[in-house]
Amino acid sequence: MAKGDRFVNQIADIHTDYTKWYTDVCLKSELCDYGPVKGTMVFRPYGYAIWERIQAEADKRFKAHGVSNAYFPMLIPQSFLMREAEHVEGFAPEVATVTHVGNTELAEKLVLRPTSETIIGNMYAKWIESYRDLPLKLNQWANVVRWEKTTRPFLRTSEFLWQEGHTVFATPEEADNDALTMLDVYKELANDVLAMPVLTGRKSEKEKFAGAVATYGMEAMMKDGKSLQAGTTHFLGDNFAKAFDIKFLDKDGAHKYVYQASWGISTRLIGAVIMAHGDERGLCLPPPVAPVQAVIIPIGAAKNPDVSVKAAEIKATLEKADVRVTLDDRDQSPGFKFNHWELRGVPVRIELGARDLESGVVTVARRDTSEKFTMPIADVVKNLPKLLKDIAKAMYDKANKFTSEHIARVNSLDEMSAALDGGNFCDAYWCGDRECEDKIKNLYSASSRVFNADQSDVGEHTCVCCGKKAKHRIYFARAY
Amino acid sequence: MAKGDRFVNQIADIHTDYTKWYTDVCLKSELCDYGPVKGTMVFRPYGYAIWERIQAEADKRFKAHGVSNAYFPMLIPQSFLMREAEHVEGFAPEVATVTHVGNTELAEKLVLRPTSETIIGNMYAKWIESYRDLPLKLNQWANVVRWEKTTRPFLRTSEFLWQEGHTVFATPEEADNDALTMLDVYKELANDVLAMPVLTGRKSEKEKFAGAVATYGMEAMMKDGKSLQAGTTHFLGDNFAKAFDIKFLDKDGAHKYVYQASWGISTRLIGAVIMAHGDERGLCLPPPVAPVQAVIIPIGAAKNPDVSVKAAEIKATLEKADVRVTLDDRDQSPGFKFNHWELRGVPVRIELGARDLESGVVTVARRDTSEKFTMPIADVVKNLPKLLKDIAKAMYDKANKFTSEHIARVNSLDEMSAALDGGNFCDAYWCGDRECEDKIKNLYSASSRVFNADQSDVGEHTCVCCGKKAKHRIYFARAY
Repeated sequence: MAKGDRFVNQIADIHTDYTKWYTDVCLKSELCDYGPVKGTMVFRPYGYAIWERIQAEADKRFKAHGVSNAYFPMLIPQSFLMREAEHVEGFAPEVATVTHVGNTELAEKLVLRPTSETIIGNMYAKWIESYRDLPLKLNQWANVVRWEKTTRPFLRTSEFLWQEGHTVFATPEEADNDALTMLDVYKELANDVLAMPVLTGRKSEKEKFAGAVATYGMEAMMKDGKSLQAGTTHFLGDNFAKAFDIKFLDKDGAHKYVYQASWGISTRLIGAVIMAHGDERGLCLPPPVAPVQAVIIPIGAAKNPDVSVKAAEIKATLEKADVRVTLDDRDQSPGFKFNHWELRGVPVRIELGARDLESGVVTVARRDTSEKFTMPIADVVKNLPKLLKDIAKAMYDKANKFTSEHIARVNSLDEMSAALDGGNFCDAYWCGDRECEDKIKNLYSASSRVFNADQSDVGEHTCVCCGKKAKHRIYFARAY
Repeated sequence: MAKGDRFVNQIADIHTDYTKWYTDVCLKSELCDYGPVKGTMVFRPYGYAIWERIQAEADKRFKAHGVSNAYFPMLIPQSFLMREAEHVEGFAPEVATVTHVGNTELAEKLVLRPTSETIIGNMYAKWIESYRDLPLKLNQWANVVRWEKTTRPFLRTSEFLWQEGHTVFATPEEADNDALTMLDVYKELANDVLAMPVLTGRKSEKEKFAGAVATYGMEAMMKDGKSLQAGTTHFLGDNFAKAFDIKFLDKDGAHKYVYQASWGISTRLIGAVIMAHGDERGLCLPPPVAPVQAVIIPIGAAKNPDVSVKAAEIKATLEKADVRVTLDDRDQSPGFKFNHWELRGVPVRIELGARDLESGVVTVARRDTSEKFTMPIADVVKNLPKLLKDIAKAMYDKANKFTSEHIARVNSLDEMSAALDGGNFCDAYWCGDRECEDKIKNLYSASSRVFNADQSDVGEHTCVCCGKKAKHRIYFARAY
């Protein structure tokens, strides 16, 4: 390794300064940059390419569920937000308002969508006439604006990219079921595409979406033991139907309010991938979303042109097999290149030197395990797709083990405090009262995340906070 | 045809009321709807699906040219716009401004991007250090806001969707060449994907982009003889480099300004498709962008369940062959369904009745030519992909013939007036003076579109307007 090589990509220590580690990884791997306006960010090509992969995978799954894409205006009349009382209360403080065009003041103030239930509800009222128009399942890929005070790349920025599904049904059961179905779709996406285990379940009243009857969430554990809300689905009941007068003529001849669900995932997922899989060397990307799945690094090619020829040949073969591959033939030392691509989390590195070439092999290095092994050149194209699958599986298993090992059963606030400080989620029983949630938030900066899938023995337990009879088994955690 | 069927989809007569015909087609084929704020529109699923096809086809071509996608903030500091004098003059009157978040006034006013040269220039100044960073070729798919007074669905709305490519080079030649190369990419997209002939060339100073050194455009002829600017590419010179201090360290050790190009196509292209191909029965979609390429209509299926079975079988076979196919088994008359899908411009209709089934054939109807013919059921899957290609080709040829027949050589203003009123583009010689362009605009509401590819005999001619020596051969037309 040439002098200085190891320091080129220097990032903060993940064990002692996780916050700076995260920012360093985001910026130095060129996933993103800060925008000129405070709280905004730029998605650089490497970060945006991850989002493109997530989009493609999610979009395919939505369409398989009978969802069509559409696009609604970003500018919403301010009055629309007011129609649903909880909704406006939840979003008004962070909404950006357009007042002027050129030098002319607008007759009605317009807000930049923080989410689109209202403007879509307004259109649904126009489009839906009878039971024949139901169910209606639309989704949009869009930018939204929520002016948050504290921002961090991917996790919380004043503008972010997301998809928002908005579905309409004749009955509350169907709408609630859709919220649960899409939660499963999100979970499968997190597991299979992001190699990320998630806890899914209903959220408390305090944590639910402003305007929903029920919110379901998926929570992923980051390597510091904090939780990241990685996606939510909402059963909206007839709240927006009543606010926007969305009715249908039912088979029985009666006009009835519709029931709705909405659901969203966002560019936050990129932050989740960084923090669920990253390590002291930087990013570690799951192969299904990695913009570059394999990098070929020729070694000593300057002295041996055959190395370059063979490297290019391997690249062409892998491209034909739909592996996203890059050949790094820059005039830099191998050490520089190793660091460069490790920082960027490329799953597989393929080294090819003169001696390898003589033996008809390459040296393959896995980013996730750091394992290195030789592979006959002739087998690379056959082995790589399977290796990438194995890596995705191993990354999931590793993250799943980490998550399981960092969920602590707690029976008292003292136990909770210790568990949180030790970087754990808390599996606890809770009376269901907002006061206890608020107290835990104030004491430990932790919030309730989702109800535990297993509620069977709740009756036998008492609230972790107040000692009253428990109503729910729920996860508490510090969260992003 | 059942009573009333013909009137279900009634649209205005294309020959006597083209404007209403256009709006009727947009709304009644459910491509779009008006948004609640004046000048905004909603892309309904059928319209958005066309955009998704255009996006996929364009994105593929951009990437083949070494372009990567990225995403920049929508909110731009107002001061950025001011840095390039022509740019602010061009865009300021139609820019929407955000002044408040919640109840708090922002320290600096922010504008919603009308285009992103400024904010991207600001980032490029940070990212570009040396010649090794060049060329840099980024693109973003985004929404933009331009508050226009007169709006029409797809053609001119206060918010629209587009892509904007922003490329950076070391020399003016490379940047100008990129603008011309991308113009060719757009032309190929228009021809091969939208079956739409276009005239391409440089635009006059009056018509160029605010801030560009040169603008190149592609112009498509609509069926009323008006021109639609379907895409533009710009050579920006070092205008934005100077405004945003974008410099690179060249090989010779000197710091130099970069040279840039930018280029965009938008959801306007959907309007172009509607007006280039539509007819008295509504939309006529080119197969490459048609959300539904073939619709199967079973006839008399209620009396003969075998018809339904076979129709479903044909559908499954076509889906496997990647034909976008729909089976319309709704409880409606065949006439209703014929109208429904003709209005929506589906390229191929496949009818299957009991008698057809006995003979082992289907009846195939082409939307573009209205030809009907029988086809052995066994051949459908083999024939359809070729038929769809033939249709795209025939649609292009038809539009190309129409365009050729509606370009008039004019040598005087009287000839120009007559040609324009007859629904033609004018192929004219022009002195190059803004005064003549303005006069033609005032007299005939026509503007210069692009320079003719053939400038060989300009020296022998005089200006169509003032009679002075001609400097250019150029197209004048009324335009959308």
